Amino acid sequence: MPSGLHALYGLFLLFAAAKAGEELFQRLRQPALIGQILAGFLLGPSVLHWLAPSGSLDFMAEIGVMFLLFEAGLETQPEEILEHGVMSFLVAVLGVLTPLALGWWFALAAGENAITARFVGTLLTATSIGITAQVLADFHATRTTFGRVILGAAVLDDILGLLALSTLSSFAGQHPRLVNMLLTVGFVTLFFVLVLVLRRTAWPRMRRRMSGWRARSPVWSFSLVLLLAFSAMSVYIGLAAVIGAFLAGIFLSESEEIEPLRQQSHAVSSFVVPFFLANIGLRMNAAELFSRRDLFLIGAITLIAIVSKLVACGLAALPLGRKDALRVGLGMIPRGEVGIVVAGQSLRIPAIPNAYYSISIAMAVLTSIIGPLLLRLALRPQPSPGPAAQAPVARQASLR
Amino acid sequence: MPSGLHALYGLFLLFAAAKAGEELFQRLRQPALIGQILAGFLLGPSVLHWLAPSGSLDFMAEIGVMFLLFEAGLETQPEEILEHGVMSFLVAVLGVLTPLALGWWFALAAGENAITARFVGTLLTATSIGITAQVLADFHATRTTFGRVILGAAVLDDILGLLALSTLSSFAGQHPRLVNMLLTVGFVTLFFVLVLVLRRTAWPRMRRRMSGWRARSPVWSFSLVLLLAFSAMSVYIGLAAVIGAFLAGIFLSESEEIEPLRQQSHAVSSFVVPFFLANIGLRMNAAELFSRRDLFLIGAITLIAIVSKLVACGLAALPLGRKDALRVGLGMIPRGEVGIVVAGQSLRIPAIPNAYYSISIAMAVLTSIIGPLLLRLALRPQPSPGPAAQAPVARQASLR
Repeated sequence: MPSGLHALYGLFLLFAAAKAGEELFQRLRQPALIGQILAGFLLGPSVLHWLAPSGSLDFMAEIGVMFLLFEAGLETQPEEILEHGVMSFLVAVLGVLTPLALGWWFALAAGENAITARFVGTLLTATSIGITAQVLADFHATRTTFGRVILGAAVLDDILGLLALSTLSSFAGQHPRLVNMLLTVGFVTLFFVLVLVLRRTAWPRMRRRMSGWRARSPVWSFSLVLLLAFSAMSVYIGLAAVIGAFLAGIFLSESEEIEPLRQQSHAVSSFVVPFFLANIGLRMNAAELFSRRDLFLIGAITLIAIVSKLVACGLAALPLGRKDALRVGLGMIPRGEVGIVVAGQSLRIPAIPNAYYSISIAMAVLTSIIGPLLLRLALRPQPSPGPAAQAPVARQASLR
Repeated sequence: MPSGLHALYGLFLLFAAAKAGEELFQRLRQPALIGQILAGFLLGPSVLHWLAPSGSLDFMAEIGVMFLLFEAGLETQPEEILEHGVMSFLVAVLGVLTPLALGWWFALAAGENAITARFVGTLLTATSIGITAQVLADFHATRTTFGRVILGAAVLDDILGLLALSTLSSFAGQHPRLVNMLLTVGFVTLFFVLVLVLRRTAWPRMRRRMSGWRARSPVWSFSLVLLLAFSAMSVYIGLAAVIGAFLAGIFLSESEEIEPLRQQSHAVSSFVVPFFLANIGLRMNAAELFSRRDLFLIGAITLIAIVSKLVACGLAALPLGRKDALRVGLGMIPRGEVGIVVAGQSLRIPAIPNAYYSISIAMAVLTSIIGPLLLRLALRPQPSPGPAAQAPVARQASLR
């Protein structure tokens, strides 16, 4: 009664469907996140029409992707990412410039105006850090070399994608300046450095103090405060909330209490992450895409999204060997959060045809499904011996 | 960026303040929930005005109270509540009728119209099941005799309070009929019986099957589906969502996996329950209460709320002995969710003066603070030996 029936009914339906999709895809030995995305697609306006996107579901989805990245951060040592820092940087930069250029060129070639062309390019820049983290978790690959390169590059290209978006936003009536962009880059760097320094200096001392705290589960409570604080700060300086969540996880990843922390955040993410994944499918409305041209655009843009990241990121990762380079390329394919935000901007820019909103969402859903499926194939156990470090992980993932 | 800065900032601020309030009140050896309510009050429009009530905070608060009751349910064996079923029933019925009559009479005596009088009576009927569950948890008293009587009676008087509300709603344009009320009672009974039967018959079989499931944490995932399903069902038949959440907890309370389940739901409730408590304080707007008459009405109605429950429920619980009867009476004082819903109805009924909305919220906050404070005093270790079963718990609670 305090809760509207509709909101609770939606939470129940989406969560139950997502879990059923997860179970089914696990049994079919396919990536579990695809089952959850498809469950949302099935319930949504495109097929059954039992549910429509809503504010409360979007809210749960956002909490979900924050905990997803928090969990990924808990598994990550910054040293491990910095170890492959140069490669992650190359993967990110090449993986942003190539789709940006190709998407831009394609839209012009397809007869769209200059602003739309710029929009399509921006749309294709950023890999979904949320989907990527879930893919790596599904494949137990978060701690492999290619997993670390992918995660580092996904964080970096989110930042680059958000900078590209800020130049696009000028067409929506906001006026970015070079000074503001440089300020953002400065704040981002400062934020990262502060987190990395404080986790080694202030955190161990605080943790000792916390043993005297009397509130319920002090370390877990403090971790949650940190998660919310870093996420809010991250939004404040112009980044996505998930980047703050990821940093909060990294901040805590060396705690003595890491095992209970992982279990506790796992308990929450089992509740909230399915909403993030299923909501992606729910937001896609196939009914809005009628015309042949729309379908052609979806096909072409999705193809460009896939090929551009695969080739550019794969080439940048070649020093890891051909097999791992292929995995990095495939792992970078999914587009998500930033793509959806860019899509939302299209509705505010009159020069961009309306159909591009649905086209963008469709591209995000399709790349989030196709990327993990291809990666699944690339992780099959090979008859020839692969790089020693990755082989057991690959086998474990494909035999589950 | 996908998340509005304002929503995230609010989540961070309210959560951090609630945790600080909890820690402070634990150190002062006062009930932790009061610290959390006051933290919300402090941040809210009455004092600092750093935060205003918002949709996302209300949403988190509702998820919070659901998990609070789910956790209370996990600690409860239905046999233990049924053991004291007759007494819980008496406590509930006397504890509903007395404040209903006294509130009604007082408002008439204070010169209000008949509809307002009926509103004040209805406002005072239902003990807050959420606050009560948190009080019992704070005092480690969930499994004591008086704790069980209180919890059983709080669930029952919520149902009675909702029936009283449905007759009041007719003035807001809805037309309840006797047939509908009987149908509701029938559905409620059926729902309770089904849950109690299924947990013994279907659940053990399902649990065995679940061992073959491949989704992440199958038992926890299934528990979450159950929690959302029962809560939605509960709203569907006209009850509060929390009653369904409580039943879902009871349903699972005999599982073999009860320990991991408790830890997992504890991890979630550490995150969401503080929003429920702090949001109560946040919703109170002292700035709206200027006039002497408003302050007089708050004082008088709060006093009636306290005395009526204390005397009526205490008398009904006298067979437990004077000490436990006092504890039952004190434990039943807090008003909350139902009171807030009733208050919301007042805005839709033109005959009720507008000030009654803020008066009602103030009464809910004050009883939620005063009740636990008095109970805290009643639980102090006594020089004379108390009833053997309760003494260790009481001592433990007051020595923390």
